Amino acid sequence: MFAPVYLDHNATTPLDPVVLDAMMPWLSQRFGNASSRHEYGRDARRAIDAAREQVALAVGAHATEVVFTSGGSEANNLFVKGVAARQRPGLAAISAVEHPCVMKPAEQLARQGWEVCKLSVDAQGRVDTAAFREVVARRPRFVSVMAANNETGVVQDIAALSALAKPAGAWFHADAVQALGKMPLDFRVLNAAGVNALTVSAHKIGGPQGAGALIVDKRVELEPLIAGGGHERGLRSGTENVAAIVGFGAACAQAVGRLEEVSRRLPALRQRIEAGLADIGAVVFGAEAPRLPNTVLFSIPGIEGETLVGQLDRAGFAVASGAACSSANPEPSHVLQAMAVPPVLARGAVRVSLGVANTEQHMDDFLLTLQETVSKLRRLSAIAV
Amino acid sequence: MFAPVYLDHNATTPLDPVVLDAMMPWLSQRFGNASSRHEYGRDARRAIDAAREQVALAVGAHATEVVFTSGGSEANNLFVKGVAARQRPGLAAISAVEHPCVMKPAEQLARQGWEVCKLSVDAQGRVDTAAFREVVARRPRFVSVMAANNETGVVQDIAALSALAKPAGAWFHADAVQALGKMPLDFRVLNAAGVNALTVSAHKIGGPQGAGALIVDKRVELEPLIAGGGHERGLRSGTENVAAIVGFGAACAQAVGRLEEVSRRLPALRQRIEAGLADIGAVVFGAEAPRLPNTVLFSIPGIEGETLVGQLDRAGFAVASGAACSSANPEPSHVLQAMAVPPVLARGAVRVSLGVANTEQHMDDFLLTLQETVSKLRRLSAIAV
Ligand SMILES: Cc1ncc(COP(=O)(O)O)c(C=O)c1O
Ligand SMILES: Cc1ncc(COP(=O)(O)O)c(C=O)c1O
Repeated sequence: MFAPVYLDHNATTPLDPVVLDAMMPWLSQRFGNASSRHEYGRDARRAIDAAREQVALAVGAHATEVVFTSGGSEANNLFVKGVAARQRPGLAAISAVEHPCVMKPAEQLARQGWEVCKLSVDAQGRVDTAAFREVVARRPRFVSVMAANNETGVVQDIAALSALAKPAGAWFHADAVQALGKMPLDFRVLNAAGVNALTVSAHKIGGPQGAGALIVDKRVELEPLIAGGGHERGLRSGTENVAAIVGFGAACAQAVGRLEEVSRRLPALRQRIEAGLADIGAVVFGAEAPRLPNTVLFSIPGIEGETLVGQLDRAGFAVASGAACSSANPEPSHVLQAMAVPPVLARGAVRVSLGVANTEQHMDDFLLTLQETVSKLRRLSAIAV
Repeated sequence: MFAPVYLDHNATTPLDPVVLDAMMPWLSQRFGNASSRHEYGRDARRAIDAAREQVALAVGAHATEVVFTSGGSEANNLFVKGVAARQRPGLAAISAVEHPCVMKPAEQLARQGWEVCKLSVDAQGRVDTAAFREVVARRPRFVSVMAANNETGVVQDIAALSALAKPAGAWFHADAVQALGKMPLDFRVLNAAGVNALTVSAHKIGGPQGAGALIVDKRVELEPLIAGGGHERGLRSGTENVAAIVGFGAACAQAVGRLEEVSRRLPALRQRIEAGLADIGAVVFGAEAPRLPNTVLFSIPGIEGETLVGQLDRAGFAVASGAACSSANPEPSHVLQAMAVPPVLARGAVRVSLGVANTEQHMDDFLLTLQETVSKLRRLSAIAV
């Protein structure tokens, strides 16, 4: 089978074979419902407990602070709606570059009488501290600012921002879905600064689709999004997806072990691509801000992102245009809009996001194909003119 | 390894090896995000589309009526909260024997100004038609009555009930999590009668944990529970759990193929157990109502259900006491309370729920162990007196 080179790890990652091995027993002989009070059930419960420790360890949290969900989108919705449901409508602040699964629930709150303020970012995609201070002075009930952006890779200083929000009494949440496994995360330290909750997701770190977690400070009062049998300390009901949770735990253990390699190898690989990109006149978004080691979002003036992604796909390279997580949507990305990128340049956006399996050879092959594709597209548009 | 005889299929089922085979590629080489616009992504999208057809076929629905969720609990919450969010607070009616994942979201609505009426059931656990008519006359905004109960196996006549609710303009939802695979379900027919939505879940039919669906009439206006990237026609966001969805589809195909066998073999096996139960003076709950072919909930006067389940577990038989889906909860089941079962008898409740892998030998071995255990417990309690 023809296997294209995968350069879209921010969308999802291949399941790590070590993780699959850990999951397999739970997809065959060990199939119990973790709430059942017989041996099959207790066996599943122990596996979930062990996975909870692994996830907690990876983010520097206590196991009792981990609330398993079906993924990052659910965890973000749980925080936003769960916190809101326990308070009277008031002000909520989220950054203008949040993932749709923070943005949309906030918009749902806005239709229920909440005032939702979108925190502006600078041209590099970082939350503007002065604007943030002004919003905080208005005492928002909660704040959500992502640890790292899925499109640009731009990293926010959530410790510093949360420290500003703390005196105002706002609960501070950070979507850390893209941060986990790519930069150190320590909930004990962040929590001391003022971060009350983090969202993480398994399938972005070599784990399975179908598991995520809200890491949450026990002082935060949350209404469950999925209510029922009372699983996850009453915060998330539903028969636990044991195999996926076990896989999430194993993926976290792998991520911890690999962080050093990720921080060393991926920036070097990305540097190789960025050098090539500079040669063909590409603009790299957020290049002057701290970024995740694996992500580069760029635009080649005069070339449509969609077209380029399609051509690269045919040539055997899987990359993303705009935000790959959301469905077919030809609008320029809200992230680039918030960074005041001109629409014509934003429509050219292509994201390359690397993983540990990528090699220098992949980078060189990619650049060669990119150069050829760009030349071809430029010739075509020159003819069209 | 010692493998206890599994008689708790209403809690969860072993993953069918055929289903696991269908899932495996999606846990290895074919790992794409179904929203990605490259070959990995399109491959995943096609797999989800095919699974959607399989699920639709199993319930007699159209593929576009299938909204994938993480499981039954999420689908029930999506219906209850999703319908409520699109209406002004009013009256909602649910049966008194609903699963907690219908009951609790309804209670959340009650705290937001809704009036929630719990429809009473008779001593056999069937919704009382006279009482139902009275509630319907008060024009509830929606009704939720389960197709079959997880504890007793008692089947409700949802077609008839929905036909009564239809003229009142109430949206009618049925939790069919326990019905799927154990009795015919035809959403086209049910929908014509008045049923607007059904909940189903993969792990109860030999599929994986982590996938479920709300089968929903497109006229029903629903607010998404998990909002974000706009997956599932905007009704359920979050990166799709491709492997679990593929497994759900395969499990549905298996379930359709096995329905005849289930309807023929399981009642015979259960009959064998019930004959033995009669010999030791057990009471079978809902025995006079139509029941799922695989379920028997019984109580042996003078013997605690918890104790019996613990003894049977040690002797190598996995059965449930009360509702196995909910967490540790020593209260007598709300289902038996609603059926006006005296608390002392309700506390004796033990559920045996069969699956296709169970044999006559399992039944006979179980009965023998049960008889021995009961004699032992009776001797002990005689001494204790
Ligand atoms: C920053 C960010 N947050 C949240 C999500 C949603 O996570 P999930 O796909 O697990 O629902 C994603 C990716 O989809 C993401 O990149
Ligand atoms: C009748 C019924 N409804 C809903 C559920 C919840 O489904 P899930 O476990 O997939 O969340 C269950 C079992 O747990 C059930 O038996």
